[in-house]
Formats: sequence, C-alpha cells, structure tokens
Amino acid sequence: MQTNVGLLGYGTVGAGVAKIITMEEALLSQKVGWPLKLARAAVRDPSAARAFPPPPGLLTADPYEVVGNPDIQVVVEVMGGLEPARTLVLAALESGQHVVTANKALLAVHGLEIFETAARKGLEIFFEAAVAGAIPVIRTLKEGLAANRIQSVAGILNGTTNYILTSMTRGGATFGEALKDAQELGYAEADPTMDVEGTDAAHKLVLLTVLAYGVFPTLDDIRAEGITKLAPADFRFAEALGYVIKLLATAAENPGDGKLEVRLQPAMIPRGHLLAGVNGAMNAIMIRGHASGDIFLSGAGAGMMPTASAVVGDVVEIARLASSRTRTTKPSLGWHSLKAETVKPAGEIRSRHYLRFSVRDRPGVLAAIAGALARHGVSIAQVIQKEADPGTGHVHLVMLTHSAPEAGLRAALDDAASLESLLGPAMVIRVEEFAGG
Amino acid sequence: MQTNVGLLGYGTVGAGVAKIITMEEALLSQKVGWPLKLARAAVRDPSAARAFPPPPGLLTADPYEVVGNPDIQVVVEVMGGLEPARTLVLAALESGQHVVTANKALLAVHGLEIFETAARKGLEIFFEAAVAGAIPVIRTLKEGLAANRIQSVAGILNGTTNYILTSMTRGGATFGEALKDAQELGYAEADPTMDVEGTDAAHKLVLLTVLAYGVFPTLDDIRAEGITKLAPADFRFAEALGYVIKLLATAAENPGDGKLEVRLQPAMIPRGHLLAGVNGAMNAIMIRGHASGDIFLSGAGAGMMPTASAVVGDVVEIARLASSRTRTTKPSLGWHSLKAETVKPAGEIRSRHYLRFSVRDRPGVLAAIAGALARHGVSIAQVIQKEADPGTGHVHLVMLTHSAPEAGLRAALDDAASLESLLGPAMVIRVEEFAGG
Repeated sequence: MQTNVGLLGYGTVGAGVAKIITMEEALLSQKVGWPLKLARAAVRDPSAARAFPPPPGLLTADPYEVVGNPDIQVVVEVMGGLEPARTLVLAALESGQHVVTANKALLAVHGLEIFETAARKGLEIFFEAAVAGAIPVIRTLKEGLAANRIQSVAGILNGTTNYILTSMTRGGATFGEALKDAQELGYAEADPTMDVEGTDAAHKLVLLTVLAYGVFPTLDDIRAEGITKLAPADFRFAEALGYVIKLLATAAENPGDGKLEVRLQPAMIPRGHLLAGVNGAMNAIMIRGHASGDIFLSGAGAGMMPTASAVVGDVVEIARLASSRTRTTKPSLGWHSLKAETVKPAGEIRSRHYLRFSVRDRPGVLAAIAGALARHGVSIAQVIQKEADPGTGHVHLVMLTHSAPEAGLRAALDDAASLESLLGPAMVIRVEEFAGG
Repeated sequence: MQTNVGLLGYGTVGAGVAKIITMEEALLSQKVGWPLKLARAAVRDPSAARAFPPPPGLLTADPYEVVGNPDIQVVVEVMGGLEPARTLVLAALESGQHVVTANKALLAVHGLEIFETAARKGLEIFFEAAVAGAIPVIRTLKEGLAANRIQSVAGILNGTTNYILTSMTRGGATFGEALKDAQELGYAEADPTMDVEGTDAAHKLVLLTVLAYGVFPTLDDIRAEGITKLAPADFRFAEALGYVIKLLATAAENPGDGKLEVRLQPAMIPRGHLLAGVNGAMNAIMIRGHASGDIFLSGAGAGMMPTASAVVGDVVEIARLASSRTRTTKPSLGWHSLKAETVKPAGEIRSRHYLRFSVRDRPGVLAAIAGALARHGVSIAQVIQKEADPGTGHVHLVMLTHSAPEAGLRAALDDAASLESLLGPAMVIRVEEFAGG
C-alpha cells in the first residue's frame, strides 16, 4: 500500500510541502503505516526557479495530471487565488480525491460549495494551514474542544499587521514608516492591501466561525476594519491607559440573545492579557469553551515551513483515516447543519470604546462632544485631555466609554462631526474586556 | 445507530463527564452524527453523594456491568490508581471496547501493556485528559505536528506546584506557608506528595515523551525533582537575575548524539519567555517542531469541567472514527516502533546552573568553591555575594555557571561539601536557555 500526493502549485508553501515529504520520508511512512510519496506537481511554468528543487519529472504544466489522476489519492492545493483553484478542487473531489488546502480566500468565498461537495462524495477536505499556519487551531475546534459550547474565539490571525502594530507600539513610528520597514524585512508584501485592510484575517475569521458555530458568515457580515488609520498618538494613549493595540478577529456567542458577534478590527487589549503579549509576526488564538475554560494557542502563523507543517499534518491524517475506512460516511463537522441567520448586525454589538478626537482648543468642545454622546445613551468612563500644542493650538481629546451599542456610538459621532472645532473624524477603537471565564 | 458510553468511576471527573454527556446531548449527537448516551457507571459505593447527580439507575457497584457489556462501545476510566484500573482497562480492550482514560499514573506505569493490547485488538485508547486537562496537547503531538521531527517539548504540567511557585514568586512565602495556603484554597490535596515531589508531572512527561519520540521512558529514566527544597532566597535571586522559577518537564532530542534528555525539575525560565508568564494553577506546553517552529499551548490543566472536556472530546472522536471504519487496522501511533535505549543518563545532560551556597563569611570560601568547580570543568559566568547577615555572619553565595554536564557539577559539589564553612548542601536549579528556534 502507498499513498500518493499531488500538488497544485509549487510556490513557497508548495516547495515546503515537497521538502517535508521528500526529506522526512521515513518519519512520515512510519506515522502513516506505509510509504507516503509525492507523485506530481502542477505549476504554471515548470521552468521557473524553486525554493526547494523538485525531483526530476515531478512538475507538469497540466493540472489534470494531478486532478482526476487515479494514482493520486490526496490533492494538495497551494496555488492560492479563487480560480482556477475552485474549479480544480471541485474536480478533484468529484473524481474521488481527498483535498488539503491552505487557501483561506477560496474557502471563505466558496467554502459552502466545496464542503458540500466533499460531504456528498464522502471525502475529506482539510485546511489546518488556512488559519494561523502551524498552530493547530482547526483541529482544536473540530476535535479537542468537541465537548464544548464555544463561547468565544479571539485571535491575532495576520502576521504582517501584528508585525506593524508591534513596531508602532515599541517605536512610535507612523503606519507608513512601520509598513515600509516591514516590507524591507520581508514581513509585508509589495502590495499589502489584503493584510493591512483586514481582508486576509477576515477570511480566516470566516473559517473559525464555521468551525466554532456551524454558521458560515459572508464577508459582508463581518465588520472588517484594517489598521491603516491608527496614529502614533493612539499607541501612546493605549500605553497610558494600560492597553496594547492589536488587530483582533472575534467570533462570540452573545449570552443574551444567542446571536453571534463576528468582527475584525483594531482593539485595545488589557496589557496583562495573553493576547497582548503576542508580538512580531506571531499569531495566537484564545478559545473559550463552556467546559474547557480559556485555551490559548500561539506560534508562527505563516512562512514556508510552518505552513507546510500544517499541510503535511493534514495529509498524514487523511492517509491514516482513508486507509482504515471503507468510505467516510459523514463529514467531520456536519456541514448540513450550517445556519445563516444568526449573525448579529454590527450596529447592535455592545462594547466599550476608545475615542480620540483631534480638536482646536476652544471653550465648549468637551461639553459639546460629551453632550452628543449623552444624547445617544453613550456614557463616558474616563477622559484624557493634555495641554494644547503651543504651535498649532490643537489638542487630542481621548475618551473611554462604558459599554454601549455601536449604532448609538456612531450616531453620536455623526452628531459631533458637525462641530466646527473638530479637525477630522474621531478615531474609534474597541476596548476588549474578556470578562468572566 | 447509537454510541453508548460506560464510566468506571464517578468522582469529580466522572461527574463532569456525566454532566456534559447529559446536558449537551443535542450538541454531541450533532457532532457524532447520532445519539451519544451514558449507559452505566460503576462505582465502589453507589449511595455516596455526587457533584452531578447521576440519572436514576446509572450507578452500579459491579464494574463488569460496564466492562464487557456488549451494549457499551466506549469505556471511560476515571477511577484513578493502578488497580483495579489496569485489570479493567485490559479486560475492556480484550472484550472489544474502545477506552478513554484520564489516568496518567496507569499509562505511565502500565502503558506499554495497555497500548499493545489496544493495537493487537485494533481498538483506540485515547487519553487527552491525562496530560494538561483541557489543553489539546496529545492531539497536537499525534496529529497537528505529525509532519515534524520534534526537537523539544517543555511544559508546566502540574497546577498545584505552579500555584505554589506563583505564590512564592509574588509573596515571598516559604514553601510550607505557600503549601498551606494552597491547601486551604483547594489547590493542593491534604497529602500533596504526588504533586510537590514531582511524581504526577513525571507521569505526564512519560506520556509526552512517548508521543513525541516513540520512546517509553521509565520513571527511573527521568530525573524527577520536586519543589520542596526551594527557599524564598532562590526566588529573590531569580528575580534579580531576570528569571522566574517553574517546575519544568522537558523531553528534548540532543542534536549532537540524538539521545533524549527527559527531566522534571525546578528551572530558571528567562522572564520574557511565554512559559515564565504561566501563573497560578494554569498549565502550558511549548513544542518545538523542525518545521512548525515553537507552538505554545496553555489553559486549565485540571478541575472537574476542563478534565471532562478533554475526556468527552476523546469520546466524540472515537464515536466518529469507530462508525466509519470496519475495524481500526492500525494504532494511531505505531506503538510497535517504541524504542527504549535512547534516553540519556542524567549525568550526561549539559546545562547552565544556578547554585546557591549558604556559607559562613570567612576568607577563602569563594576561592575554595570556585576551585572545586574549576577542577571538574565547570566554569562560572556570574557571582552574587551580598553583605553577611550581621547577626549570624551567614551569607548567600550565588553562582550562575556556563553550560556543563551535570556529572561534573555534582562531583564538584561533592568536593565542596567537605568545606567547613558550608552550612548545608548547595541549592541547584537548572537554567533554561531555549536557544535557537
């Protein structure tokens, strides 16, 4: 017996997968129980240079030498993007091949169709590498915490933004400066939009929400907010108030109405909290189960070898499972039970907030802003106002609010926006409380 | 179809398991795909009071109404102790029942026999709850990191000792005072021997070593050292030197000779390291894989519901797997490949050390001790000697050594022990470096 693996894509992650399967053949064969072999890898340009040189004859330009090949039992999709990845993954499943993918965008957008196809065919679709790299968060939600009602999942899911936020916290840099440093050091891409605008982390959050709650939110359901508007002043005030700013992905069940809060936004994390200590390009996830309590996982969320570690872990598990089953009789998660109607509208989500107004230092500004907040039921817990800049006469006015629905807060800010003394829109950052436990 | 679960034992953990299976019936049935039911629970005294009242008719005094009962597919052993647990678990496997156990002592002592029986019968033996409660460390080693050569596993595996060490770090208490507080608050048992002498953590370390390396160390192979000898002075010096003292379980492959270091001892952890921030009764594990890099897991390591969370997670997975297989054709881990000959003798393990000598403040003491260390090849990196206590004339002499084999260090300490100025044996604490990565 032998399990043959085919790759779709041989970029950085694909080369890492090839490296592990080739170099650790003895280890993997022992874990699976028989040889695990790399059979074929489909790429756009077989003549391009590679991070791990492929064995002679491995590469092909024809993806259908992998997809539908009766000698290949497991197809690993590491090409990225929506098409042709979607078409190829669906074709692999239809032809009876198990699939492992690291493609969060593909699953966040076309996951329902793909999961349903896998379920109908009795095949596995594994995607540990799609969220938080080598950290076993998918397995933990599917299996380790299977006995729990999940109360919340909160994670730092994008290494690029966490690297930038860490620089801004430590060095007082502007976003633009920190981004440039990150690009020079290889932590951010030339076009960083998917990372810094939050799209990449939102894709991962969709997948965590599916696993935790059986609910498949659309990207429109998620209030996805990036980190581009954060200013050095916000980091200074966060420190003074005892917080650290992180781009936090959260899915949580509201104990009151049972509705889900799903959001991706910069958040103030109390300095002593485990998530506040996750620095640089690291990822981390805190999962709260009703029986388990808080489980915290952290590690490398990206990179050639950590991502390949997750992909090959999935391949090994599929090889083991597939061997001992006549046929998978049901999908691991009961995808048939997916619900769509329980995601809470962003405006109804209650929270404490940090507000920073840039104002001209004139009498009545504080009273006017406080009045607008009061009219919409937002009460103020703490105010910081420092002396005005002697040159410009401008001043930062910072407020921490008590918990209030976001809709009320936004209405109050709309009211206040007409104030002549205001120099621009207020900066709004959610304050996390991590209450109870 | 239906999966029936039988309990051996209905103490705190058993009651937690019964509570989850009873109260979360809808959730669990959805995850498994059909009803999961609690069928029977064998206890010594069916009339005793219980933390979660058993449904009428559940309890029996006869364990063989659970073991060998053809209507029960999964036996959950939560009675603890070596016998009759061993006999009952083996009998359950022989009769074709899968087993889930939370019993680390049973597996550390009789694991080989039990794992081999399960493998021979093609049955599962799951034990997530035996190490670090709700933290999914067993699953992470077996599955999530299956693609990795494991370079090291380092963990805080005993909540009682970590609670005591946290008190001693924060409050300057003696071991005796901190233990008494822990007992009053329910964090330590009336007889705390298994915890404070390190036996409980050593049992868990045996299981982590099996999973990481396929090597089954005996308790004699492990240098298991408890926390009873630590003094308030050690915590003060640790802080001054930038360390936090933790009871650390470590299994690591030595890159030089491929031999394993397996040890359980108080250790100085650099203050900025994730393991140094694990406080109170929490548990945590850091796993370093050759591809994954460092993966850190933390959470509640004990308690009724966290432990039950892990047990029921195992039950759900077995119920899923068992349904879709005609028969398990091989054990999950290849127990047949267990090796026994590669554990490194304690004396050969190299490390930096913290040494604290209580001495009479007389000329030549420092020279004599330094001379003894030098004769055995142990060089000194740093020395702290404070003014002598004016009342007693006694002084703490603290040294941090460079890396040296433990045998040399012990020989040097034996030499120095004859010094008339020495007031007692030296306190020796390993200094962890967590190099590379």
